[in-house]
Formats: sequence, C-alpha cells, structure tokens
Amino acid sequence: MSRSFHPPQRILLGPGPSNVEPRVLQAMLAPLLGHMDPVYFQCMDEIQDLLRSVFETGNRVTFTVSGTGGAGMETCLANLIDEGEEVVVCVNGFFGERMAELAARWGARVIRVDSDWGQPFDMQKVRDAFRKSSARVVTMVHAETSTGMRNPIEELKSLRDVRDAILVADTVTSLGAHPVGIDRNSIDASYSCSQKGIGAPPGLAPVTFSERALEKIRNRKAPPRTWYLDVQLLNKYWGSDRAYHHTAPALMNYALREALCMILEEGLEARWQRHERNSGTFVAGIEAMGLEMLVAPEYRLWSLNTVRVPDGVDDARVRSRLLNSHNIEIGSGFGVFKGKIWRVGLMGANSNQNTVLLLLAALKSAIATRA
Amino acid sequence: MSRSFHPPQRILLGPGPSNVEPRVLQAMLAPLLGHMDPVYFQCMDEIQDLLRSVFETGNRVTFTVSGTGGAGMETCLANLIDEGEEVVVCVNGFFGERMAELAARWGARVIRVDSDWGQPFDMQKVRDAFRKSSARVVTMVHAETSTGMRNPIEELKSLRDVRDAILVADTVTSLGAHPVGIDRNSIDASYSCSQKGIGAPPGLAPVTFSERALEKIRNRKAPPRTWYLDVQLLNKYWGSDRAYHHTAPALMNYALREALCMILEEGLEARWQRHERNSGTFVAGIEAMGLEMLVAPEYRLWSLNTVRVPDGVDDARVRSRLLNSHNIEIGSGFGVFKGKIWRVGLMGANSNQNTVLLLLAALKSAIATRA
Repeated sequence: MSRSFHPPQRILLGPGPSNVEPRVLQAMLAPLLGHMDPVYFQCMDEIQDLLRSVFETGNRVTFTVSGTGGAGMETCLANLIDEGEEVVVCVNGFFGERMAELAARWGARVIRVDSDWGQPFDMQKVRDAFRKSSARVVTMVHAETSTGMRNPIEELKSLRDVRDAILVADTVTSLGAHPVGIDRNSIDASYSCSQKGIGAPPGLAPVTFSERALEKIRNRKAPPRTWYLDVQLLNKYWGSDRAYHHTAPALMNYALREALCMILEEGLEARWQRHERNSGTFVAGIEAMGLEMLVAPEYRLWSLNTVRVPDGVDDARVRSRLLNSHNIEIGSGFGVFKGKIWRVGLMGANSNQNTVLLLLAALKSAIATRA
Repeated sequence: MSRSFHPPQRILLGPGPSNVEPRVLQAMLAPLLGHMDPVYFQCMDEIQDLLRSVFETGNRVTFTVSGTGGAGMETCLANLIDEGEEVVVCVNGFFGERMAELAARWGARVIRVDSDWGQPFDMQKVRDAFRKSSARVVTMVHAETSTGMRNPIEELKSLRDVRDAILVADTVTSLGAHPVGIDRNSIDASYSCSQKGIGAPPGLAPVTFSERALEKIRNRKAPPRTWYLDVQLLNKYWGSDRAYHHTAPALMNYALREALCMILEEGLEARWQRHERNSGTFVAGIEAMGLEMLVAPEYRLWSLNTVRVPDGVDDARVRSRLLNSHNIEIGSGFGVFKGKIWRVGLMGANSNQNTVLLLLAALKSAIATRA
C-alpha cells in the first residue's frame, strides 16, 4: 500500500462537497482544545450565534450535530416523531423520499404528498392531506438536491389555519446560498450541512429547533432510541449546563466557525445575490449552448443547477471527461433522472464568475469530443 | 463578537482528545475530494486495510462511522440488538453504564454484571449471568476511561463454552495504545475513536464486525431505526457497491489515514511498548511524589492513568492551575470518583518522556501552590 496520498486538485461542482476557502482550512490548524475547555465553550457560543444569524432565527436551541447532513435529518425526525403518529411528508425528489424512509424508520405512519420529481407541490393537496390526517408534523425539503428544485417552505405556515403544526424543513442545499428565513417562515425544525452553501468541509450538521418543537420533544412518551442524536442530551452540552455528552469534533467546528464568519462578513443578502447572479450566468451559458435546464425558472435553485443531458450524448462519458481531463466534478442524475440530467453545484466559494466560465467551456468541449 | 479565534496551545493530557502530530494535521490540507470520486474510493480502501491492521483483524466489514466514539457505540448496539432480547452488559465504570443505557434504549432487556467502579470483574459472575440468561450479546469496555481500568476482553471467548455468543468490546481508549487483538480474542464487534490512541483529530469512530456479528444483523426482525448508523447501508458504501449513503467527512478521513500510517510505521508492538514505558515513568514519578494510583498495577491502562487526589487537596483548583498556568489539560473524576481522582491521558503523540516529565513537574507545583 502506498503511504503517501496526493489527491488531484478537483474543482468540486457536484451536489457537494464544494471547495473550501484556504482561510477556512487554515482555521482547522488552530490549537486543538478539549471539549470541556472554557475556551472551547466560547467557540461553541460563537458558533451558535453565527448559526442563528445564518438560519435567520432567534431559536435558543441552535447548534451543530457531530455528523453529516444525514445525521441532521435523523436528529430532527428521531426526536420529533413519537411511535405510531401520523406525519405528512412532501416528496418530489430523492431527499423527500429519504425523509419518508427515515420518518417510517422512526415510527411514523407516513402520509405522503407526492409530486413528480422536479415538479412543484400542489399546496392544496398538502393542506388537504394535513386536514384529513391526525398529523402534527409536516416535512418539506427546501432545496431538493436530486432535481435542483426549490420548494415553497414559506407556504407551510398556512397549514396553521387548519390546526397547530410542527414544520420541518430540510435546508441542506439552501442554507448560506438561499434565504431560509426560519423565523419569518415559522419553521420549527431545520437541519443543514457544513459543506455546501456554508463553505466548510463535510462533517457537521447545523440544526435549529423552535420552542414549539422543543415542547413536543419534551412531551415524548419515551426518549428517542438514539442517544448520539438525542436533542435534549445534546442541548445539555451546548446549553448552559455544559454536561459532557460526546467528544466534540473540535477542528470541524473551528472550520465551520470561520466559514460562518465569512458569510456574515460578506453579508447574507450579498451572498444570496452572488449565488443568484452566478447561477444566472450559468443558465445563460447553458441556453446559449442550446442545452436546456430541467427546472422552470421560478423554482430553480441557485446552489444546484440541473441541466438536461442532450439526446445522443452519453452522460457518463461527459462526466468522466470533465473529471479526468479538467479535474472538474459535476453530479449525475438520481432515480428517474439517472442518465438524464447533470447536477451542477455553484455553492460557497465555487459560486463565482470564473468558475462558471471555466465550467461552460469545459462542458462544451467534453460534449463536443466524440469517443 | 470577536471574529478571530486564537485558542491557547494546550497540552492535552485529559481523557482525549490528545494532541495531533503536525503531519496528521497537514494531511487535512490535501485537496478535498467528493465522496464518489474514484480517488476517494482508493483512500477508503486504504483506511479499511490500515484499520484491519490496527484492530488486528481480518474482518471485511471494518470502516469508519462519520461520528465520534459515542456514534461507534450506538452503531454496534443499534445494529446488534433486536427488540426485547436479553443482553449481558458488564459495568464497572461510566462507559459500562453508558453501554447499559444505550442497550436499553435500543430495546434490550439488560442483564447487568456489576463490579464497583475501578474494580475487576468476577468472570465467574459474567459466565453465570450469561448461562442463566437467554442473551446472545455480551458487552465489555476494554479500557474504562472513567477509572483507568483495563478489563479482560480476552476472557470473554470462554463464554462460548456455555453457548454461542456475540462479543462486543469498547476499544475507545485502547486502540492504538494497547493490544486489542480483535481476532485473537474472538471479539465480534468493536468500536473506537480517532482522537486517543490513534492520534487523529476527534470526529470519526472506527468500527469492525465479524461474520458472526453480520449474520445476526442480517437476520434482524426489522432494520434498526437508525438510518445514519445502519451497518448494512454503510457497508454498501464502504464495500464494493459504492452505493451513496452520506457525504463522507473526507478531511477527517485523510487525517485518520495519515495517523494510521504513522502507527504502522512505528509498528504496533513498538507503539504499545512506548505507551507502557511512558505510563510506567509517570507512575514512578507519581509514587515518588507520595501520591497513589487508583488502579492496581495488573489492571492499569497505559493510555489513561488515574491518580488519587491527596487528602486536603482541592481537585478543581489543581486542574485549573494546570490549565491556566501551564496550559495543561488533565481530566477530572466522574460519578463516584468526582473530586477523588485525576485522569491523565498519555496517548498517541503525548505518550512521550518529555511530556511526562513536564506534567510531573507542573503537577507538583500546582499541588504545592496554596491559593
């Protein structure tokens, strides 16, 4: 076995991870602290404040779970779902499917509201399903990474006209790139990841819980099976108790802290606009090449851009040419879109004009080159 | 809020994390790869081979869980325990207690075999408890971090004289510092962490499963609730399927890979001897100061050394003097040993003669200094 590891310098334009700014990588080299060190507690407090700003929330219980975005999804569902209760899950892509799968694993009787992958939800169907069910929890993926579709989490709060509801939003591919407005949109629980719009390395899942969500969790019939992702235990460590729970992945948190600082220095609004602008440049370039975007303009994500693979073009050959000749990673389609779309992440540091221009040129060349 | 974060350079001699070699930190700065990149797959294969060497096993299913040691414990118990089955849990410290708690959360009827914290197990009691129960799973903490006690996982295999048993060993504080001999000791499932004997930053949990353990998992009545820690799903990503599961914390895995390479370059035997030698130097120094070790010599861990706080000495004051005047972190006692012991980690890079000499001098000074 080779003892040295020198991976190529990829330009990561898939569904994440995205490339990390040198300043954020550098932050991981700060001296390692123990998880009970008073100076580390300061770092945790700062991360919580920074996350509240980026989530646009005042939620006290806002912190990082020591796992990836999938651990964030599991944290929200495992804690919020009581055995046997109905949960409304909106599904129009792979990550909606995953929420349905996890909700079922965690004991929910899942009431699905389906749209075709890449098609918008009919909110009247969501309301009807909620009205007819006994569900208290309703979930929606804000940025559906499998299709490039932005779903209307801002419309979920209208469900409260029917009755009280706990609204759960997956913001894995939107946080730091799109406005999520947790408080403005009255979302009760949300989870994200470190390696997309936030611009830190993969490994952490930011989560936030409203008082309404916490009340449901406190009133569970039994604690959730999971100890590692038990919100009440985690909050005893992140909150003022500082009760030992697990050994924090401190260097990952240093990196996240630095990435969050960079977001606030840039300004949230400016960052969203940058992601919108560079996505727009990409779309213009794609359309100028005669290619077609999958998602209608009003539902398009800026962070994750999906392009239809043109007829007669071999999806896999183009991606491997991009990877091997240009060191550029883009994502393939999933499920019904396997072989049908490319998924192009323009997130964090990689949402910039030159990266877009390079990608367009390389993509054009990769498509034009016959085997 | 301050935007710069410059933590002090601590010497981490608590129960972990331990300081990380510059070479291992440097490895995290290698170019980030996507979790489906063929070059990243090579890195995963190497990590699996390296982990097999350090666990001393040929187990095919050996990989890292993307969470800390606690996630490793949860992975083993959540996957191995079927709802309502009896499980024998040996408890003589905080982490034995935690195994009992997690086993119960995951649906076990827990049969405890207790010894006082810091006291060896009576293996006849373990055998009797196993014989009288219907348990198929028996768990023991190899290196009890709360007391500094090494428990005899090598004696568990004698339970198979009674009937077939799935043996689970917590090697969080032993792997990389003490021999664990997974195959030699016939252990079926084990989990550890990255930040102690291994010498990488905190954030990953190496795990290993024997074919006997996997057979039990494959024959579960239902999949485990947890999706994030589902061994069969994780193995589809780490195994030859390479099926996407979650976005790997690639930089943490780079660091782990480098730390594992350093272990094999040093040699496992040489590394164990180094940990034994430096622990011995520490104990000699402690006894020369007139202080007393908690654990009898034959059960002492080399990685985690527990010292009785002398009568009339204020535990917390000494620790805070070490931290604030010397930038040295040591651990406090837990539970019944709160205020009664200091827990001194000499692990990985910090198991070296000069660190021991410095600590002894600083501890002497901190004890001698009256408030």
